[in-house]
Amino acid sequence: MQPIDFQTEPSRYRHWRIERDGDVAYLIMDVDPAGGLSDGYELKLNSYDLGVDIELNDAVQRLRFEHPEVGCVVIKSGKDNVFCAGANIRYLGKATHGHKVNFCKFTNETRLAIEDASQNSRQIYICAINGNAAGGGYELALAADHIMLVDDRRSAVALPETPLLAVLPGTGGLTRVTDKRKVRRDRADVFCSIEEGIRGARAVEWRLVDEVVPNSKWKDTVATRAHEIAAHSDRPKDAKGITLTPIERKIEADSVSYCYVDLEIDRARGLATLTVRGPLQEAPASVEAAHALGAKFWPLAVARELEDAILHLRANEAAIGVVLLCTDGSAQAVLEHDEFLIKANGDWLMREIRHYLKRALKRIDVTPKSFIALIELGSCFAGTLAELAFAADRSLMLVGTRKGDNRGPAAITLGRANFGLYPMGNGLTRLQTRFLGEPDALKNAETKIDTGVEGEEAANLGLVTFAYEDFDWDDELRVMLEERASFSPDAMTGMEANLRFAGPETMETKIFGRLSAWQNWIFQRPNAVGEQGALKLYGSGVSPTFNKERV
Amino acid sequence: MQPIDFQTEPSRYRHWRIERDGDVAYLIMDVDPAGGLSDGYELKLNSYDLGVDIELNDAVQRLRFEHPEVGCVVIKSGKDNVFCAGANIRYLGKATHGHKVNFCKFTNETRLAIEDASQNSRQIYICAINGNAAGGGYELALAADHIMLVDDRRSAVALPETPLLAVLPGTGGLTRVTDKRKVRRDRADVFCSIEEGIRGARAVEWRLVDEVVPNSKWKDTVATRAHEIAAHSDRPKDAKGITLTPIERKIEADSVSYCYVDLEIDRARGLATLTVRGPLQEAPASVEAAHALGAKFWPLAVARELEDAILHLRANEAAIGVVLLCTDGSAQAVLEHDEFLIKANGDWLMREIRHYLKRALKRIDVTPKSFIALIELGSCFAGTLAELAFAADRSLMLVGTRKGDNRGPAAITLGRANFGLYPMGNGLTRLQTRFLGEPDALKNAETKIDTGVEGEEAANLGLVTFAYEDFDWDDELRVMLEERASFSPDAMTGMEANLRFAGPETMETKIFGRLSAWQNWIFQRPNAVGEQGALKLYGSGVSPTFNKERV
Repeated sequence: MQPIDFQTEPSRYRHWRIERDGDVAYLIMDVDPAGGLSDGYELKLNSYDLGVDIELNDAVQRLRFEHPEVGCVVIKSGKDNVFCAGANIRYLGKATHGHKVNFCKFTNETRLAIEDASQNSRQIYICAINGNAAGGGYELALAADHIMLVDDRRSAVALPETPLLAVLPGTGGLTRVTDKRKVRRDRADVFCSIEEGIRGARAVEWRLVDEVVPNSKWKDTVATRAHEIAAHSDRPKDAKGITLTPIERKIEADSVSYCYVDLEIDRARGLATLTVRGPLQEAPASVEAAHALGAKFWPLAVARELEDAILHLRANEAAIGVVLLCTDGSAQAVLEHDEFLIKANGDWLMREIRHYLKRALKRIDVTPKSFIALIELGSCFAGTLAELAFAADRSLMLVGTRKGDNRGPAAITLGRANFGLYPMGNGLTRLQTRFLGEPDALKNAETKIDTGVEGEEAANLGLVTFAYEDFDWDDELRVMLEERASFSPDAMTGMEANLRFAGPETMETKIFGRLSAWQNWIFQRPNAVGEQGALKLYGSGVSPTFNKERV
Repeated sequence: MQPIDFQTEPSRYRHWRIERDGDVAYLIMDVDPAGGLSDGYELKLNSYDLGVDIELNDAVQRLRFEHPEVGCVVIKSGKDNVFCAGANIRYLGKATHGHKVNFCKFTNETRLAIEDASQNSRQIYICAINGNAAGGGYELALAADHIMLVDDRRSAVALPETPLLAVLPGTGGLTRVTDKRKVRRDRADVFCSIEEGIRGARAVEWRLVDEVVPNSKWKDTVATRAHEIAAHSDRPKDAKGITLTPIERKIEADSVSYCYVDLEIDRARGLATLTVRGPLQEAPASVEAAHALGAKFWPLAVARELEDAILHLRANEAAIGVVLLCTDGSAQAVLEHDEFLIKANGDWLMREIRHYLKRALKRIDVTPKSFIALIELGSCFAGTLAELAFAADRSLMLVGTRKGDNRGPAAITLGRANFGLYPMGNGLTRLQTRFLGEPDALKNAETKIDTGVEGEEAANLGLVTFAYEDFDWDDELRVMLEERASFSPDAMTGMEANLRFAGPETMETKIFGRLSAWQNWIFQRPNAVGEQGALKLYGSGVSPTFNKERV
């Protein structure tokens, strides 16, 4: 199978287009039925597969970076009387379990990125539903801050997954209905059981949408609402965006090389090594200089490359179970770039970059691979890049130096970035989550900002899992990797999904932890995916046969 | 297969015994290897099956009711050098998916009941580990408030499920390690990968146990600690317990009849009707009179019978997908009993009864059946029994009266009990959860305390899902039930598990929502349960063969 590529750009879009009207952008879904990622299904009625969502993800990113002047984005359909029929069922029916789970994870991340744009970039999304928004179509709408529905006695919102397909509305649908829209649970139960959905006044009364608008006033009301919302944004009306130029990368059989990231695959051992390099230049002298660097500015470049590498690993390297996280370069240069970002936080572009880094790091948190950070000579686990060590399931640090290597001892250097810039999905920083039971350790760590902490001290401070001297390093690492490789990949995935998210739960952790886990379970049940299951038989005219046992 | 019976009593225990030492009770695990619930496995090394846990659950309940003088319960092993090896693997390996899931749910509820006893009855659990506490054995210890481990260079705590069995420590283990013990996530990752576990000083340093005690001082230190803890309990030292006499019930092919609860099964329709009757007597005149009633006191009797009926439905009636919840009797009598409980809350027994009702209602919340409350003529959905309507996935209420029936219109009557007595697992009351998005509706509801609210008003207040007149009732109900019966049982289970728990998450909701869902997923994966899976091959000498794909 062709590897899945998460990079695209507007000139290559087949399913979406962006139209501008001053401070408002229309993000228009107009899916090409023949444009599926693979053969064997047609993307009718604005139904989507992963390829459609890759474009959407790209568009959401670009709107933030390339259009600082846009304060409101309106998601709408380019087709008459159809909004979006959700994920394509034939596509899902043919997909492997692994592909289905991966697809849902990515689409969930995209919806969360939409909410992140509304909340943190003040590029506020509204959704204008003209036609039926069913399943994933309504789940897309649920990601918006304001949902408008045309009142034409036909258009409705619906979550028909359960009655029609025997699966859940798993792209955040159930969670957003109860926790974001706060729909009463018995109404939610009814709503999720009605194939044809709910329309008109009842959709407002049940809080499924925010307003219904007569057909005759539809276009004007949508435009008015969008401009009203845009007027409340703090985004600069006269700033100039930067272009997210294509990521430079070289893909080979067992490696992907970017400017600041290298990914090496060792198939025999089921192992990948992901190396992130620190900045090759000094931090820019001014915000203007950083803007001029654009997509080449190190923090942005590294966010994009890291994200692409992680998505590639997930989608195209399923048999790789363990990822070694390495860094290479100058800790000082990383910290200087961090400080630049923090000091210039009032600038719209620096704000975007910080949130991009946050999202890229969050992708690691939900990636089903064991991450092991190796803090070695020449590494730069500092500030933003130290987050890689804290995102890892374990971290190993070299104590002292190595014979024949004249580089100084490995160090981990905390920066202000580690104390608030990159919250995880649970709303806490990685260090807060790490030290949930040791508040003093968190305070101690903060006193070490900007100080390189070497092996033994790092272990004593709780910043790394183990610190080994050169003499022991190779054996300890080899044993750990052999052990990890001997474990069940499924048990690892389940274990990591639980251990990574101590502390509070948020809508985001509920979506990945509770909703997705149940959906993954259902995605294996014969009632959904068996030969007589609903997902297989949908559209065939044959009704599914269910095992009635309740588990 | 023989139906599973959740009722037992100390004289019938095969696996546990209780020893008293003043204000301390020792709850001693001494599993009879030949006492398995079914054939084909031996319960070696204090490993357990559902039957062992049914006795534990019974013991935990009885200690609360029958021993008010006990302020501290010490869980320990009756075998030398063995604490508990966890769930029996051969038992799990042979069990159906449904049985495994049910078993885990019940054992999770039992561990939560232990925590509830510590927190809300001040009958505080400590665990004294002499020998290895592995898997479910350590998870049992995790339910205690204080964990002691003998320091004999052998005894260790371990969660070896992942390396040995390719499943999760799913009886709360992962969640309690990160969220109760607040073990650092990388240490938790290491701990959950080490078959032989962790012992001695490191177990304390990693916060896996609270203290290690030399062998020579073991018995004395455990006793001292237990008496110290008991001294801080507010339980009455000189009160007399009540006996939890055997529940009176008549089990027939398609029904179970109790004193206040009836369960009728309609197998053809996959439907059960659960009817709960209000009190047949007036509320007692005094606390002493309530004590004298003992297990016959209505609130306690109804809690025990309701709980037994729910457990029976789960374990023995898997093919029943829908449960109609009905009540019958005097609303006034229910409310009077509620008021009695509330006013006498300072009494230890009334406190126990209230928390028992809370736990019985919480069992409904995690039961994988669709609950539909029918609020009809002659019903008494009032106070405590109104919680049944709020626990239901939907509620239907009759408007007005019925021709030929001279009873007055159906009403739902709120009482103070609905505003704080029975929190759900998420920490909120059912009404708070219901009205998460409508705080005004919650306030309005509170103004209706003690006032019977009839059909249309109840619908307007949001207390019921639908209100129908006699003319429509039968058709509406029939269509609803036919529709529900046509849906995939798995999709219903997943949907309900998500819709029932809006709002905050707690350790308890994390255990049932996140941890259990992942475990259920793993319980279906070939890497665990296939012919070459770890659960099937454990103990055979043959290593499992894993599909290396990471999902």
